[in-house]
This record gives sequence, structure tokens and C-alpha cells, in this order.
Amino acid sequence: MFTIEAVSDQFDQQIQQRIDDKTKPLGALGRLESLALTIARVQGKETLEITRPTMLVFAGDHGIAASGVSIAPSEVTAQMLLNFARGGAAINVFCRQLGWELELIDCGILQPLEGLKPGDCGKEIVNCRLGAGTNPIHRQAAMTLGAVHQGFELAKGRVVHHHSLGCNLLGLGDMGIGNSSSAAALMAAMLGLEAGDCVGRGTGIDAATLKRKTMLVEQALVQHHDELTDTYNKLACLGGFEIVQMTGAILAAAELRMLVLIDGFIATAAALCAVELMPACRDYLVFAHASAERGHQRMLQHLKAEPLLDLGMRLGEGSGAALALPLVQAAVNFYNDMASFAEAGVNKVV
Amino acid sequence: MFTIEAVSDQFDQQIQQRIDDKTKPLGALGRLESLALTIARVQGKETLEITRPTMLVFAGDHGIAASGVSIAPSEVTAQMLLNFARGGAAINVFCRQLGWELELIDCGILQPLEGLKPGDCGKEIVNCRLGAGTNPIHRQAAMTLGAVHQGFELAKGRVVHHHSLGCNLLGLGDMGIGNSSSAAALMAAMLGLEAGDCVGRGTGIDAATLKRKTMLVEQALVQHHDELTDTYNKLACLGGFEIVQMTGAILAAAELRMLVLIDGFIATAAALCAVELMPACRDYLVFAHASAERGHQRMLQHLKAEPLLDLGMRLGEGSGAALALPLVQAAVNFYNDMASFAEAGVNKVV
Repeated sequence: MFTIEAVSDQFDQQIQQRIDDKTKPLGALGRLESLALTIARVQGKETLEITRPTMLVFAGDHGIAASGVSIAPSEVTAQMLLNFARGGAAINVFCRQLGWELELIDCGILQPLEGLKPGDCGKEIVNCRLGAGTNPIHRQAAMTLGAVHQGFELAKGRVVHHHSLGCNLLGLGDMGIGNSSSAAALMAAMLGLEAGDCVGRGTGIDAATLKRKTMLVEQALVQHHDELTDTYNKLACLGGFEIVQMTGAILAAAELRMLVLIDGFIATAAALCAVELMPACRDYLVFAHASAERGHQRMLQHLKAEPLLDLGMRLGEGSGAALALPLVQAAVNFYNDMASFAEAGVNKVV
Repeated sequence: MFTIEAVSDQFDQQIQQRIDDKTKPLGALGRLESLALTIARVQGKETLEITRPTMLVFAGDHGIAASGVSIAPSEVTAQMLLNFARGGAAINVFCRQLGWELELIDCGILQPLEGLKPGDCGKEIVNCRLGAGTNPIHRQAAMTLGAVHQGFELAKGRVVHHHSLGCNLLGLGDMGIGNSSSAAALMAAMLGLEAGDCVGRGTGIDAATLKRKTMLVEQALVQHHDELTDTYNKLACLGGFEIVQMTGAILAAAELRMLVLIDGFIATAAALCAVELMPACRDYLVFAHASAERGHQRMLQHLKAEPLLDLGMRLGEGSGAALALPLVQAAVNFYNDMASFAEAGVNKVV
């Protein structure tokens, strides 16, 4: 379905030499240096560039939310999607500030936001609906295998579209009440962990709700134990419509040699799925933010990922990915534009 | 010399209420929320703003450098200042990218960069020279008390100038071979620590050089032990011309109720001096970056500061402060522009 080439390390020595020849002590730009190497490997060019950075926010509802795993009811998914469309949410603010294109995708919220008048809604919501919310994963499979494949195709369509407009870097964000339950279940299945190691407080649930959430995720894992044979089945049993499409978007982006900025807990769950399916896609991923959500650190360790930011955020929406863009651009800019010791006439002392 | 008002916490409850009414889970924007509170306290207005952010890079030479405490000789200070003037260094790249005004200040490098033709040098270097490098601190006082006071006045002149142009946020950066020795000595004097707790590898010295550097800083502390009675004397005995002027710039900025973005180890040493002299200035400081330099963490703890970024950088020049600007702007923007629950029609669930 996807053909993904791992990046070549053939030019690593030249890339590193160019970084080391810049007018700075060896290694003094820290993580920006390894980031420049990552980008240079992906882009394979003398001059790096970030063009038309585009944030895709994937929204979906979750059957498990009806069992009380979140501070908010499922209606808030649609309310927040409308807030995104009107430009009032954190992701809107950050995208406007930092030059991101923003696209909103309904992957399957309970009720589509139809009948919006242009005055209501500044922004189109793209219809990639796979249903009206998933089934509750602690009782039955979230969706069919067919829905997973359809979700991948739909996401690929969006990525190909943005690539054709000149985008070479995607940010992935999420909105979906209940989706940290689904992400935790996928994490447990992918990493071979217990529900208790993966479930966290999401948007801020209390201890009793945390206990219930953990129990339901555990129940989902037991319920589907024999079916969790490969990534497609894990996604079908435990996934969300938005997580499936985020997974597909990662694979489609890697196929097109685009960089992908991964946000927090939900986006990283999608990254786990994508990397399990096609490990070569890992080379195209930049991890933006260490979420305050409990399981995120362990996901990142599994992916050998060191995120760029650690601001104690736990918002989703792609907010962490949005905020990391200036750091990606800084890596590109120092690589392209800093003078070398020879150019600047500065003594190189190593 | 400076009149600094501590910020009022009178409106904290209203500010926090406004943050909590934004369409996001309580606390979900993490450190951006406490940053918005800091800025709102300083600016005391309904609508926050960052205007004409200006990076001041202070350069100076250090007598101790002749004893081999760095990977580079003192000539590199001037070479790098010329590189800044020509636009080829990391700080230039980051300032261009992120919309900083950049000013270069010669606080006392060995040889002034005179005779530059306009073609050589895209940027004026402001003359705030206190001498041709400091005295070696392990043998005598770095400078006179008069030089400290003169440095404060010169820095105040620059800050007042930029304030009059409409700047309300300063970044402070440094350039000076040997200045991490001076900063470590000041840190030891300020925090009552041993040289060994404060001296680090700077731009990347080897173990033998680290040992020598530690010994010389220890020698400086012993040499001046009886004179380290107050901050002025600590600066005179152990300081650098650029550190003195950075200290003065912090105090002048706080007097004008400007925010100051503090970079890494050197700028934080200046912050320690400024806060020791006039504790109220602490309210105006935002800490940008956790330096890879060993002593920085302990300085930050002393100042109860949690920096915004931790990218493993150890470059100076104000590079960490430059990169933190988008986060400061993001805090301002979410505070000003995000919709409240009521405005957006989103259920508030707490």
C-alpha cells in the first residue's frame, strides 16, 4: 500500500563536516545539530528548506467516552472542531503566529458539523468520515479492518493534496474526547505493557475516573487479546478514526519524503503504529513535544525519540507540533546560512 | 542608581481566571500559562504585547584567557564580533528568522574593531568600552569599582535608547573568550560554593584544561576573599566587562518595566548579580534555555527559574534567548486571542 524508502546515511560525513565547519564550538548547537542532520538526510540537498508547513488536525469520536473516561462528554469534540473552524482555539493562535497552513479533518465525529453557514465557520472541515464515532473498544472492535484501510486511503489523499501544493513538512494534531484511552490501549498492545502502565490523566481526570479508565482499557485488551495479531488488527480493535488516519498520514508523508512533526501522546500512538507497520517511516519523523501525559515518555523511549520541547503541555490539537516549527526552521537556517570558519576568518580550534 | 518596582500580584486572580476560561483543559498549556501570568503582571494590561524585541550582544575580553582556560585564544572574541557584524553567526541567523533587532556592543575586547569599511561590516558595533580586556582575575581585580559603575551607566544608555524606539523585551547575549571562568567565579561568590561546583567545560575544554580552569578560579576566589563584600565588589574583582554591562542592562530594563529574556550560563551569572543587588528585578526575567554548561542548573535553582528550552546548547551569543522568543509570543497570543468557553459555546467541564 505504501512504498517507503529509509533515508540514506551515505552523505552523513559530509553533512556532519558542514555542521562542524560552522563558526561555533563543536556540538554547541546541541539538538539543533542532530535535527539538521535528520532534515539533510531526508531532503538530500545542499540547501535545506521548509515549504508550506501544514498542520492537519484529525477529529474523531470514541464509543468508550460514553463510559466516562474523560472530563468532558463527546459533544465537546464537535464543539471544539467548530472552535477550530472559527479560529478560537490554541492551535489556531499558534498556526497564525508561526505560519502554518491549517486543515481540519472530520474522521468520524458523532454528528457531522453540517449546515454551518459561511458566517459561522471560517474554515472548511474536510469530510473523511469513517463513521459516527467508533464502537466502545472494551466491548467490541472499534471498527472494521475495511475502515482502517479506508482511513489510510483518505489520509493519503489529504497528504498527496498538500504535497501537490508545495508542502514538505506536515504537523499532525488530534481532537477527540476519549482518544487517550484508545491511544493507551494501542500503546499497551504495541509495547506489550499492562493498561496500568499506559493509561494517564488525559485532560485532567480525577483518581476515580483514572481507575475506571484503566479498568476499561484493560478490559479492551483482554476482550481483543487473540485478535491483536498485527498492526491493522490492533488499529481495528483499539484505534480511533483519527488515530487510524494519522497513522496513514505518516506513512503517506514518508512515501513522499516529507518531514512529519509529531505532537504528543495521541500522535505518538499513531507513530508507534506507523513504525510497527513500516519501520522505514521513522526516519521522517521529528518529535516535537514531551507531553505531560504519563505514558508518553515510554512511547518516546521505544521510538528512540528525544522531543524538542518540554513545556508541560497536554492539550493535543497539534499544539506542541505547531510550537516546534521555529526550531525546525532554525536548524535549516543555521545549516544553510551560518558562515564557516574559513568564510568568516575565525580560528578553528578543536 | 536604579529604582525598580516589584510587580504587583493584585490582579493575579483575574489573570488566572482569564487563562482558565480559555477553551482548553485547565492547565493544559503548561509553562505557557505561567509565562502568560508573568508577562501580564509585568505589563499590567488587558492586551499583552511584545514590541520591537531587541537582542543586545555584549562582547568583552578576559585577562584569564591568556592562562589557557578555553579552547580558543582571545583573538577569537574579535573575530566572532566581526562575524556577528557581517551576519554570519548563529545569533544573526536566529535574529533574522525570528524578527529580533540585533545590536552589537563592544564592552572591552582586546583591540577595538576599528577601520572597518562599510563593505566589511554590515552592522555598527556600539562603543561601550571599559578597557582592553579585564585584568586576570586570579592575580588582581578584573577592574575598578569605577568601571563597574561606568558599565552600568553605559548599559543603561543602550537600554533607554531601545526603550525609546519602542522595544519592550530585551534579549541578552554574550561573546568573550574566558567569560565562563568569570561567570563561574561570580557564581561561586554569589552562591557560596567552591570553584569545583561552578566551573564547567565552557565551549568544550578537555580534562586537563578543566583542571587548570578550576584551579585558577579557586585562586581568584582566594585572592579576593576579603573584598567580596557586596555585589559591586564581586563584579569588580571577578567580573567581565560584558557581564557587568549585562547586569546593568537587566537593572535598567526592570526599571523601565521591560521583560528580559535571559540566555545561558553567562547571562544567568549577570542575572544572579542583578537579583542580588535589587531582588525586585527578578520579576522581569524570563529564563530561555537550560545550558549544557555544568553550573547552569544550580544557578537556575537558586533563582527559582525553569527555562523554556532545553536543547543541549552551549553557544552563548544570546542564541538560546533568541530561540525562545516564539514561545513568549505564543504565551501573549493565546492570552489575547484564544476564545473563552462562553465565546466559543464549548462546555466548560472542570
